[in-house]
Amino acid sequence: MDLFDLGRDELHVGGLPLSLLAERVGQTPFYAYDRALIAARIAAVRERLPRGVQLHYAVKANPMAALVGFIGPLVDGMDVASAGELKLALDAGADPRSIGFAGPGKRDAELRQAVAAGVLLHVESAREFALLAAAAQALGRPARVALRINPDFELRGAGMHMGGGAKPFGIDAEQVPAMLRAMAREGLAFEGFHVYPGSQNLRGQVLAESLQRSMDLVLRLAQDAPAPLRYVNLGGGWGIPYVVGEKRLDLSPVADALARAHAAVARDWPAARLALELGRYLVGEAGIYVARVLDRKVSRGQVFLVTDGGMHQHLAASGNFGQVIRRNYPVVIGNRLQSAERESVTVVGPLCTPLDVLAERMDLAVARPGDLVVVLQSGAYGASASPQAFLGHPPCAEVLV
Amino acid sequence: MDLFDLGRDELHVGGLPLSLLAERVGQTPFYAYDRALIAARIAAVRERLPRGVQLHYAVKANPMAALVGFIGPLVDGMDVASAGELKLALDAGADPRSIGFAGPGKRDAELRQAVAAGVLLHVESAREFALLAAAAQALGRPARVALRINPDFELRGAGMHMGGGAKPFGIDAEQVPAMLRAMAREGLAFEGFHVYPGSQNLRGQVLAESLQRSMDLVLRLAQDAPAPLRYVNLGGGWGIPYVVGEKRLDLSPVADALARAHAAVARDWPAARLALELGRYLVGEAGIYVARVLDRKVSRGQVFLVTDGGMHQHLAASGNFGQVIRRNYPVVIGNRLQSAERESVTVVGPLCTPLDVLAERMDLAVARPGDLVVVLQSGAYGASASPQAFLGHPPCAEVLV
Repeated sequence: MDLFDLGRDELHVGGLPLSLLAERVGQTPFYAYDRALIAARIAAVRERLPRGVQLHYAVKANPMAALVGFIGPLVDGMDVASAGELKLALDAGADPRSIGFAGPGKRDAELRQAVAAGVLLHVESAREFALLAAAAQALGRPARVALRINPDFELRGAGMHMGGGAKPFGIDAEQVPAMLRAMAREGLAFEGFHVYPGSQNLRGQVLAESLQRSMDLVLRLAQDAPAPLRYVNLGGGWGIPYVVGEKRLDLSPVADALARAHAAVARDWPAARLALELGRYLVGEAGIYVARVLDRKVSRGQVFLVTDGGMHQHLAASGNFGQVIRRNYPVVIGNRLQSAERESVTVVGPLCTPLDVLAERMDLAVARPGDLVVVLQSGAYGASASPQAFLGHPPCAEVLV
Repeated sequence: MDLFDLGRDELHVGGLPLSLLAERVGQTPFYAYDRALIAARIAAVRERLPRGVQLHYAVKANPMAALVGFIGPLVDGMDVASAGELKLALDAGADPRSIGFAGPGKRDAELRQAVAAGVLLHVESAREFALLAAAAQALGRPARVALRINPDFELRGAGMHMGGGAKPFGIDAEQVPAMLRAMAREGLAFEGFHVYPGSQNLRGQVLAESLQRSMDLVLRLAQDAPAPLRYVNLGGGWGIPYVVGEKRLDLSPVADALARAHAAVARDWPAARLALELGRYLVGEAGIYVARVLDRKVSRGQVFLVTDGGMHQHLAASGNFGQVIRRNYPVVIGNRLQSAERESVTVVGPLCTPLDVLAERMDLAVARPGDLVVVLQSGAYGASASPQAFLGHPPCAEVLV
């Protein structure tokens, strides 16, 4: 499942041996993101995208400033989920016209900031109309809006469902026509639609079906729009494998569905841009989390590696980020990849809680204090999605190499 | 289950109506901790403790600086789990002699800091001996140590198990005699033992049995100690009710067991201090999390309250902090406690993820934007145990009132 080369004895990141990188960073734990792998992944995605389909980066997946700045020129836009992320995207030099701002609970000030910035608001509730109209009036700038649709179907097989049934996200498909009329009355500048059925999906066929149904829905609802369709964001939700047995997403059906969607929108609305928003899929496999072994101890026959990193910095790997059952992320001893001496170990962090587990009874190279434990597939929803202040340990570093 | 008075229409914290407190804080979301409730809880615990048993505060439960400072004079010592928490305890004016430092993965620098501060190290691994001896030598100060025992029994009914079986915490009971000899060879200043079988236990009888067995174990192992027993920390693990159906801990058997433990240690080792460390039990029920309703929307018949707070600031209430199945914390509309108009609602936060849920299909007062959603039982493992940077929202405030 690994993008990183595990064929040498020492893991390399951005061309640097891991132990040298650790010295350069000057501390453990740290996250390292590999520019070349990110660029290669983006290029590979672009190759599968029909010409004209735009690729957006979902900042929430990894908001490290340098990484957002690096990705900016490689994509066609950014999707943000808060004023904080909006600042990151703008700081990174993203064109405000290409930034989309979604979120079920935008604060009043955030709506105003977004209008001031000139970005596209993904409206998720009738509440936002009056606030956006007032901001547009006060600032003398148009409130550019897309309407986020809560579709009338559910995406099977997604890791998480963000659409279908009763949801806090977007506006129920059946309420959309009335909302479009309300939007027009408020004088908002309608540009299009946003649909995001779910995330972390590893089934290409399901994603393809979802794209098809989303596009059908958008084209149907566009009939009631107060202005020609200029923008359609069909979401993302492309998954990456995390645990043993998970198969890599087959992009063929997804690419085919995108081509059909693109043709459909181009036929009916030639001026409309079709965009895809990906976060985890672009960066998730290009990042690792690195912690140093402080201790190797044996308790009643079980070997524990105690590291200086743990759940406070990598909540997802500890199994406390939406998982029902904890399963091991791919973990290696980064400076002993080829070691023939192996053993079953449990890797824990420094916290005084049994939740602080990075790997449970995994077969790893025999490690000793000073060695570097590496959690792979850690480029998305890592540092920013973890309770770093928990138990008062210093924050981890993040480097882009 | 509530320490706060829910009999008025508006919740009061520290004597202040919640809406006024929100104005004083100047932002939502925030955590508020009630001094009077904390002091009352500590006094109530003291009343049940046998005379001479010391009460420690486990800083990890809530490391807010003002709160640690407030609690300091009310307890006999503090237990810390990192150099960060050590600084907090020292800043709060705690006597270094009364501070204990535990943790399965103490960094080299932390061990040295602890020796420099003169606090008691709870040694959890043979690795720490040489490092502590070197620090003592370099600093010309004694390395004060207690040995944390991983007991040879397991605490039934604990929310989390920190002892018994194979564990990264402490030293297996059967290895202790050899460790004590090693400790003596290194010239460390042995003071006693630490046992922490588990946390969040709501069964008094089980806690009592655990205290009894821990004490028996300590007295047995003390026979092999290189110096007279001066200190025994029997841990804590007293639970508080979080969800409907959980019964308040019955302290009677616990108090009886403590009295027996105290008598036993006093008989054999009259100079020894017996300490109990409590975190959650002292502060957990004295704190609330407050978020403002941004929106009330209906999706396919289900009512959603969208608030400006969520899982990024209260991970435990979202069910992603060790819980296998998400169950609702006690939640109220803080400014409509007595409202007769009620409805079933799902309370979500502003994040673009279905994990961001504070209450699922709960019967609450009908709320509108501007109202204050309150999560009770939030004084422990709240702000510091949550991924606040997730999705780029501003951090919550914390106030002690």
